[in-house]
Amino acid sequence: MSQPIVTLTTDFGPSPFPGLMKGVLLGICPEARLVDLSHAVPAQDVRAGALVIEQALKVFPPGTVHLGVVDPGVGTTRRPIAAASLGMFFVGPDNGLFTPALLADPGSQVYELTEASVFRQPVCATFHGRDVFSPVAARLALGMDPAQLGPLVDDPVLLTWPQPKMEEGVLWGSVLSADSFGNLDTNLPRTTVEGFLVGRRAEVRLGTMRVIGIQNAYGQASDGQPLALYNSMDRLELAINQGNLYSRIAPDRGSAFGLAVEVRPLD
Amino acid sequence: MSQPIVTLTTDFGPSPFPGLMKGVLLGICPEARLVDLSHAVPAQDVRAGALVIEQALKVFPPGTVHLGVVDPGVGTTRRPIAAASLGMFFVGPDNGLFTPALLADPGSQVYELTEASVFRQPVCATFHGRDVFSPVAARLALGMDPAQLGPLVDDPVLLTWPQPKMEEGVLWGSVLSADSFGNLDTNLPRTTVEGFLVGRRAEVRLGTMRVIGIQNAYGQASDGQPLALYNSMDRLELAINQGNLYSRIAPDRGSAFGLAVEVRPLD
Amino acid sequence: MSQPIVTLTTDFGPSPFPGLMKGVLLGICPEARLVDLSHAVPAQDVRAGALVIEQALKVFPPGTVHLGVVDPGVGTTRRPIAAASLGMFFVGPDNGLFTPALLADPGSQVYELTEASVFRQPVCATFHGRDVFSPVAARLALGMDPAQLGPLVDDPVLLTWPQPKMEEGVLWGSVLSADSFGNLDTNLPRTTVEGFLVGRRAEVRLGTMRVIGIQNAYGQASDGQPLALYNSMDRLELAINQGNLYSRIAPDRGSAFGLAVEVRPLD
Repeated sequence: MSQPIVTLTTDFGPSPFPGLMKGVLLGICPEARLVDLSHAVPAQDVRAGALVIEQALKVFPPGTVHLGVVDPGVGTTRRPIAAASLGMFFVGPDNGLFTPALLADPGSQVYELTEASVFRQPVCATFHGRDVFSPVAARLALGMDPAQLGPLVDDPVLLTWPQPKMEEGVLWGSVLSADSFGNLDTNLPRTTVEGFLVGRRAEVRLGTMRVIGIQNAYGQASDGQPLALYNSMDRLELAINQGNLYSRIAPDRGSAFGLAVEVRPLD
Repeated sequence: MSQPIVTLTTDFGPSPFPGLMKGVLLGICPEARLVDLSHAVPAQDVRAGALVIEQALKVFPPGTVHLGVVDPGVGTTRRPIAAASLGMFFVGPDNGLFTPALLADPGSQVYELTEASVFRQPVCATFHGRDVFSPVAARLALGMDPAQLGPLVDDPVLLTWPQPKMEEGVLWGSVLSADSFGNLDTNLPRTTVEGFLVGRRAEVRLGTMRVIGIQNAYGQASDGQPLALYNSMDRLELAINQGNLYSRIAPDRGSAFGLAVEVRPLD
Repeated sequence: MSQPIVTLTTDFGPSPFPGLMKGVLLGICPEARLVDLSHAVPAQDVRAGALVIEQALKVFPPGTVHLGVVDPGVGTTRRPIAAASLGMFFVGPDNGLFTPALLADPGSQVYELTEASVFRQPVCATFHGRDVFSPVAARLALGMDPAQLGPLVDDPVLLTWPQPKMEEGVLWGSVLSADSFGNLDTNLPRTTVEGFLVGRRAEVRLGTMRVIGIQNAYGQASDGQPLALYNSMDRLELAINQGNLYSRIAPDRGSAFGLAVEVRPLD
């Protein structure tokens, strides 16, 4: 690829660290197109980082290198890895950050990064994003074969995700995350919900909130009213039109993850 | 243009959504230079988004594509549009977001986006930024004629702006927005103020704040003192040198918009 | 360089101003690769800005142009400058923002920007970032000799930094800044600390916090426990593993700068 894309996903917040990684990336691969996916992953929240990278899987072109650094174990024995999966590359710590890609592609290949000659030297034990992962991502962007970076890993760390379940005629799911509008993404794929409802109308419950029906757009509810709809990941989402559901329903909860969602057929 | 520029203005905050739009943009137009104008537009505040894009009108080179997604009506009947105006392109919802460009160029041409073959399929009803506006912006960056995207619109939505008025020898204006330093931009162009003052000194009032004279730079007031000056949009601005006027004058107000400003001649 | 790099460091926060600067930069130098180092420098905190730019010095390739706009004196008599230092360029106000580069390279050459023909006209007195510094940075990225921009300056403003000192067998340092994780960077270089300890174990104190030993990675302390380690600038850092030290130790202090740090030999 003449202008390879490298995305960055970190929990570095409004700090210079992503910019420093870009300096290393462009020093090695001056042609790289750099795209920030998010640097607002909550600190050390690997699952939230995985949910961010998951959104990129169907959006970026083949050959894209996804660099992910949510890395509470930096400098310890956790392995640094690169993965070839879904026609793209993933570089970061072996802590589950790339679970959605690895689960989606049974042919994924994961390599431990042991080839220290490609690292920025000396490697700082607290900033592998700059000294290990960025130089590796830049090499992959230049076309290096990931098999040259180290041995195959056959037991990469995989996160476990909450799974939908059906009990006594009710479909139970749970919230995965809140976006910046306070809309709540769930673990209920459209296909699962539609397969459960087989054409019946739904009542959707989250805490004390109840909504009837599943809409196509926020504007199908009145301003300030809650609604359920399918989101850009094709999963059930709960929201308030022109409002912030997360701050209304769970203002003091540290995270929206795990809130129970109930789908009941009405007719 | 060999390296067309695409700017992005959204209310998506610190989310992955702008990054996902960039994935779509670069997938279609790998040469595009992507520039974030702002993703901190207050949620669903179309007027604030329009004020951001207005600042870009005299700064970016001809041919730039301005992609704007502040879109409370996404997925409803509001039209998606592309406009050719001021030698540049504008892509987003038909809700007034591009008012300053459309008003500044009487030759502006606005097209409704009906040519679904250029959209990312399937189009998600909650994320036209990714599935409709980004692919269209990328096509325009590649040189596509906007007339190929759909029929001309002769009644695009236009926001109305507060206009300065003169009453009993006083020039009345109002605040448009606060910037990240708490400086307050007004609807009073330098030419209007200077035409009103014809060389006389001014007293400028905002709430209980009064300042004498209009300065050229923040540093012409003492630290912590309020002042009036002409800003980078060549409009009257109120500020506190080394301080935050907005948080002092209106800390509990949701927005600075509409605060009354008074200019009185002194001599 | 075919694709020169321009970095941006400002205190503009989540505003359109960095995007406007990029419009000017790309209008003049369409090939420039633009990298945000930080726009979250605390408002008008020149020292914090200097600490951000310092981190880039060993990371970006030769020829990089570092554009820095933390500029409380914009529009006053403070000089606009460009500097050639360490094989890179620096453009911004003459207020100490580039102190780390100028001190690190005795051959640094600093020029006052008096050649107004390269500025964006008319120059707005409140936004030199857009009208003075961006056009100059773009020219340097295009290969212009900085000596063409104005006369040599032999007395650039330099910040003074707190220096470590030794008293009665104790090494005293002070905190320079807190990063987005709440980790505290100090003015104690690894070489100074190691030279002081000559192999002895250390006790490190900050306020009521005491830790024994200097670690290599955050994970060498238990979750929630404080530790001292050497950071990515090769200076002593104080942190809490999986926690935020700054918010625990000094929640109501406006800045972490100047907090005293004590290193005592134990054996």
